[in-house]
Amino acid sequence: MPAVDIATAPCTMGRAAAILGDRWTLLIMRSAILGRTRFEQFKTVLGIADNILSNRLAKLVAAGLLNREPYQDGGRTRYHYPITEAGLALRPIMEAFAVWGHIYADPSAPATTLMSIVHTPCGQTTTNSAYCPTCKEPITDGDVAWLMPWLSPDPMPLATAH
Amino acid sequence: MPAVDIATAPCTMGRAAAILGDRWTLLIMRSAILGRTRFEQFKTVLGIADNILSNRLAKLVAAGLLNREPYQDGGRTRYHYPITEAGLALRPIMEAFAVWGHIYADPSAPATTLMSIVHTPCGQTTTNSAYCPTCKEPITDGDVAWLMPWLSPDPMPLATAH
Repeated sequence: MPAVDIATAPCTMGRAAAILGDRWTLLIMRSAILGRTRFEQFKTVLGIADNILSNRLAKLVAAGLLNREPYQDGGRTRYHYPITEAGLALRPIMEAFAVWGHIYADPSAPATTLMSIVHTPCGQTTTNSAYCPTCKEPITDGDVAWLMPWLSPDPMPLATAH
Repeated sequence: MPAVDIATAPCTMGRAAAILGDRWTLLIMRSAILGRTRFEQFKTVLGIADNILSNRLAKLVAAGLLNREPYQDGGRTRYHYPITEAGLALRPIMEAFAVWGHIYADPSAPATTLMSIVHTPCGQTTTNSAYCPTCKEPITDGDVAWLMPWLSPDPMPLATAH
């Protein structure tokens, strides 16, 4: 495997890593999948510096994962960042991170507070993004909610693509 | 969602991102899953600087994704980095990257050379890491090979955990 520009290499894993291999990028997209769209929302959730957040949002818009669109805020035009279809398609990646993190990342938080993935039609948790192990049905984006007990006692619905 | 130390936060997605949210880390683990264990192998594959590779390997050993073990090289004792169970458990994450990258990352390489995931018992490609869409069987680590046509005409078996 020769050294190559991974962003354009035939390895689709490498191309994705070129876009997503960054901690802040992953955390911004986690929030975007949960429906956050505004600069101040990302900033509050992540505790991220303004310049880093601006840089990552610009890269995510360039990569087609977020849109940049105007909205009215008390007569002022501001911009927010609704998620695209390509961005929402990161759901299986983010869920694979969550499943792996549940088992292998530092388990210093009590297990009962960990996040889980809920197949809303049957109400059971799943570790697979495409098939529900309980009801054996294919899972689509609209049938999934993320349960983060430290944020809400109820599973939170995901954004829809913009 | 308050700003927190994501490595120990209850969000298992964030914990995983704290370890894996780095382009080189992802690419090193891609090679490790394919059975590479030696410093020079990673260096040749990735075209990565020695100091960056050393840094990332040390972090991956500390995180429990790779082991560091001695081996004999012409009478000299050297060290290599066999993958652990936790490292091999990244397979669904890496495959989710590959599937996403196939559709959404920069498609400048011809489609016929892209990597794909093969369920070896039936020989068909899959976009799901846990269930084969062709034969409807659960997929285990030993039943998967990665086809990277620019490296080999045959699907390549994955490493076993050390």
